[in-house]
Amino acid sequence: MNEQLSIEELRDVANILRRDSLISTSAAQSGHPSSCLSCAEIMSTLWFKEMSYNTKNSEDPDNDEFILSKGHASPILYSCLIRSGCINENIKDLRKQKSPLEGHANPSSIKWVKAATGSLGQGLSVGLGMALATKMSGRKNKVYVLLGDGEMAEGSIYEALEFGKKYSLRNVCAIVDCNRLAQNGESIEGHNTESYKRRFEAFGWKAVVIDGHDISQITNAIHSFKTNTLERPFAIIAKTTKGKGVSFLENAEGKHGVALTKEELKKALGELPNKKMPSFTINKPEKFEETKIKHEKIKVEEYNPKKGKESSTREAYGRTLAELAIKNDKLLVIDAGVSNSTKAEEIKKYRPKQFIEAFIAEQNMIGVAQGLAIKGYDVFASTFASFLTRAADQIRILGISKPRNNLTICGSHCGVSIGQDGASQMGLEDISLFRAIPESTILYPSDAVSTKKIVDMCANQKIPGIKYIRTTRPSTTTIYDINDKKENFVIGEFKTIKESKKDEITLIGAGITLHECIKAQKELKNKGTNASVIDLYCIKPINGKKLGEFIKSHGGKALVVEDHHPEGGIKEAVMSATENNEIIIEGLSVKGIPHSATKEELLSISGIDSKSIINKVRELLSSK
Amino acid sequence: MNEQLSIEELRDVANILRRDSLISTSAAQSGHPSSCLSCAEIMSTLWFKEMSYNTKNSEDPDNDEFILSKGHASPILYSCLIRSGCINENIKDLRKQKSPLEGHANPSSIKWVKAATGSLGQGLSVGLGMALATKMSGRKNKVYVLLGDGEMAEGSIYEALEFGKKYSLRNVCAIVDCNRLAQNGESIEGHNTESYKRRFEAFGWKAVVIDGHDISQITNAIHSFKTNTLERPFAIIAKTTKGKGVSFLENAEGKHGVALTKEELKKALGELPNKKMPSFTINKPEKFEETKIKHEKIKVEEYNPKKGKESSTREAYGRTLAELAIKNDKLLVIDAGVSNSTKAEEIKKYRPKQFIEAFIAEQNMIGVAQGLAIKGYDVFASTFASFLTRAADQIRILGISKPRNNLTICGSHCGVSIGQDGASQMGLEDISLFRAIPESTILYPSDAVSTKKIVDMCANQKIPGIKYIRTTRPSTTTIYDINDKKENFVIGEFKTIKESKKDEITLIGAGITLHECIKAQKELKNKGTNASVIDLYCIKPINGKKLGEFIKSHGGKALVVEDHHPEGGIKEAVMSATENNEIIIEGLSVKGIPHSATKEELLSISGIDSKSIINKVRELLSSK
Repeated sequence: MNEQLSIEELRDVANILRRDSLISTSAAQSGHPSSCLSCAEIMSTLWFKEMSYNTKNSEDPDNDEFILSKGHASPILYSCLIRSGCINENIKDLRKQKSPLEGHANPSSIKWVKAATGSLGQGLSVGLGMALATKMSGRKNKVYVLLGDGEMAEGSIYEALEFGKKYSLRNVCAIVDCNRLAQNGESIEGHNTESYKRRFEAFGWKAVVIDGHDISQITNAIHSFKTNTLERPFAIIAKTTKGKGVSFLENAEGKHGVALTKEELKKALGELPNKKMPSFTINKPEKFEETKIKHEKIKVEEYNPKKGKESSTREAYGRTLAELAIKNDKLLVIDAGVSNSTKAEEIKKYRPKQFIEAFIAEQNMIGVAQGLAIKGYDVFASTFASFLTRAADQIRILGISKPRNNLTICGSHCGVSIGQDGASQMGLEDISLFRAIPESTILYPSDAVSTKKIVDMCANQKIPGIKYIRTTRPSTTTIYDINDKKENFVIGEFKTIKESKKDEITLIGAGITLHECIKAQKELKNKGTNASVIDLYCIKPINGKKLGEFIKSHGGKALVVEDHHPEGGIKEAVMSATENNEIIIEGLSVKGIPHSATKEELLSISGIDSKSIINKVRELLSSK
Repeated sequence: MNEQLSIEELRDVANILRRDSLISTSAAQSGHPSSCLSCAEIMSTLWFKEMSYNTKNSEDPDNDEFILSKGHASPILYSCLIRSGCINENIKDLRKQKSPLEGHANPSSIKWVKAATGSLGQGLSVGLGMALATKMSGRKNKVYVLLGDGEMAEGSIYEALEFGKKYSLRNVCAIVDCNRLAQNGESIEGHNTESYKRRFEAFGWKAVVIDGHDISQITNAIHSFKTNTLERPFAIIAKTTKGKGVSFLENAEGKHGVALTKEELKKALGELPNKKMPSFTINKPEKFEETKIKHEKIKVEEYNPKKGKESSTREAYGRTLAELAIKNDKLLVIDAGVSNSTKAEEIKKYRPKQFIEAFIAEQNMIGVAQGLAIKGYDVFASTFASFLTRAADQIRILGISKPRNNLTICGSHCGVSIGQDGASQMGLEDISLFRAIPESTILYPSDAVSTKKIVDMCANQKIPGIKYIRTTRPSTTTIYDINDKKENFVIGEFKTIKESKKDEITLIGAGITLHECIKAQKELKNKGTNASVIDLYCIKPINGKKLGEFIKSHGGKALVVEDHHPEGGIKEAVMSATENNEIIIEGLSVKGIPHSATKEELLSISGIDSKSIINKVRELLSSK
């Protein structure tokens, strides 16, 4: 242990962080100075006394980790990173286009920031994922998450609390900067710190309430956390004052997210002690050698879907993961309480420890998955496609962090083909959701073989960005040959299932609709109309030039058939990708709200079955 | 009070409901029989003893209300509705295309079902909204919400709990059917009913634990609820057995969502008492005359944006609502902790009671808004456009219920034009989200006058479906004349801002980009290129035929400029609507992940400013 800063010195550091936060937001003329001021003692104690980290390497696996869930307090985090020597930036460049010091901290700009925040209530789940990864690897480092009291109103927090308890993550310390005031007046519980304590306790956490400006109380609380022998995570509810240290900001309403004017800044700096940064050393993380887990040799029943036979893509998803898991200890599968439907449960038969049950809490599942991936695991997260909308904001925020680690999300039970359960269970907007995430990849296999190869690719090729796999509930005919090694499924490409020189139109399907396209093509051919059929297994990105040329050379018309709403779906993806006025793109999509019925009825009523395709082709070909 | 059924008779009714649930799911060969069996005594006691309702009128404002949050137990709800005489359907038609008895209950099929469920954890928020409406109107009826223990893992539940306490909604009774088993094995807390009780209590609710199969315990608990004098909502944690009453279903794993075979059904019915339905009368609701609230005459400072002057659409939103509120007691505004940004706070100055603070809990806000609208209020719900993604699943489920009541959602701070705060605060996928909701209407005004007229239309025209208004953070020039009574903004239409007979291209903008289009048009004209400019204030629906013809007659090319990601956005909406191969639609959208910068920098970097428009127009016009 290095020589440590005294309480007095940590107080000085806190005021230096305060000054930096005021100066930087004032220079930017925007930002949240008062939200930084309330947590200055917490931040100085964490970054300059309690946390151990290698300032030269943000990716040192033994670093203590820090997540700023109250992302609007980014200036004080930047100040810590600069003052500790982790990064070398000018704090006055805050929020400038040329600077990585963005308005809300983002890993895409600064490696030390592990998760993008700015949408509240998300940081704790990511921290839990990192803590779970750390626990699984047997490392000793800790994860600190700083939350605001405003975000304690977000339900996602309570999903995180129950998960933290369930997995006994006692290497996590949640610190609530309870400064009473949210953007818009008092937060839902105001300064009722006991109420927050009761919430943490009701969810099985150990919680203490402290004065968040008293450094010895902060230190004592963190000591209690570090020496906690209970199998439960730890929370510190720190009662603080918003705007602390500056008379006209303390407890002042209407000051959230308001930068100081030049005159105000001068006055504020006049009130804050202006000490020199004391000389300090940051505690180096304890090196830890990960021990290789030894597994008994297990033979997984090989998943070998035969061409022409029926199988479901969701089964192929689960069974492929099981096969991959026994070869890769780092592969983890997480599921939100429906693994017997998504078939993620397959892995449990062979490697139960590589399966994580997230229960019916999709928001937290995505956050935890992200945390696990950040720590180097190859992660697959699944639930029904429809229920992924519950985590749409988490997926959005994950997207803006430009993830470079290996995370694949799978949505099963897409579209009307699920049948009787009704509209609430049908993913009919999931493609739209994932398409609108920058740099995402969307894969939508139609049979067991393509699913197997796609899952394998996602696990092993470490493709950046969010990867989304869409699987189907009912069985479909296996159309590819598992033994054909040339049968690859490359991102951005498509497969030609049928083509001839006489084609008047191209039918584009994916998932269940590909099989309807194949059926339609046969019937059309019998009646003398030639159509090509494309398996658009990759919805994003699309090689639009190649696809456009294919369509042009096969009659110049295409009919895209999708088990998804028209808006933001496959047809629009094809239209946008091909942007070519010499071809015509038409679509058959699910319009309106489907009613409970059988799969066959629903495909027909929605107008995406082979019969509807045939009718539409006739209409299109007769119109010219 | 009518003569009431005895405990023995209510037990018989419970078994009749059980038999119905088994018979119906068995006929459908799908559904969730065991989830119905656990709540049979709760349902028989509620529907045949404790609740008061007018079986002839689902919309009687004095009815006690019931929400089945555990939506998969719909068969037992249908059984109650049929047996009580509310609806006349054949229970054996469950899940059939011709029947309103859908897999998960939906108001679009059955009026007695007030909210669509099936995505878990949502019913309580809707119930709270209905309860708040009831409380505000001074009525005495109660709201009962039946939850499963599986869904207690969803964070949205805890948003509802804190809201229920904050608004002292003691007319709400949440009943948790704690049957231990979720779809996939034990739920997160299993049969730990005390743990759930602690959670409710930590959030300020009164909670009791009972045996959920003991009718006198149920009755006593509901009596405690009805006579509760505390200013807090009430929860009953009912310990139950999944599959109760059928030996091979009781506590059996792997039986969730599995219908019985014919043989199993025979065996199960053999085990369940087969009594005749006792003669019963349903308690009639107490009639209540709503007293008209008397307001002091208030004069709202009239919002009168002048043509040519600067004003923001978000300010126009808030100030218009304030003006409308003093004329309409039924107009309510709800906001998720950011009303000083969305400007929803304007209403507080004049009618503070018509403003509801939902704190930073977007999921619950949408549910409460829905509940208020169901009860006849004209509701506007707002937060940042980006944070509406947090409630994407609630919005989806609201959409499938085909809402016919008056609810408008407003997302402010859309797009990169917000400036320095960074990507997490920029709504760049909200149009995509709302487009994919069937029967939604999306309005995106560009100036204060159009905003005022659009807000007015949403408040007064009772347009069915979800209405979404997108507002912009910075001020924009007012382009319409507030005094021109002919200047109407009709759904499905657009405005022509500039046009001439010499136009070579049409520029289509909305919101901030319309102003960039206008600037570009001027500069292009100065250099000899004529372009028409369209204000596409209505993104959905679009009169595609009319727009297509306009484009065709103005050069045949259009450039859509949007402060939104390309996927699912305005350009794709225009492409889909115009579906016309004789015109060319090109787009300028925000690609990739924006960095913190000024508004001007961001519009330029994203390629959606006037300069980018001019460059793109030149490229498009030179390419032919």
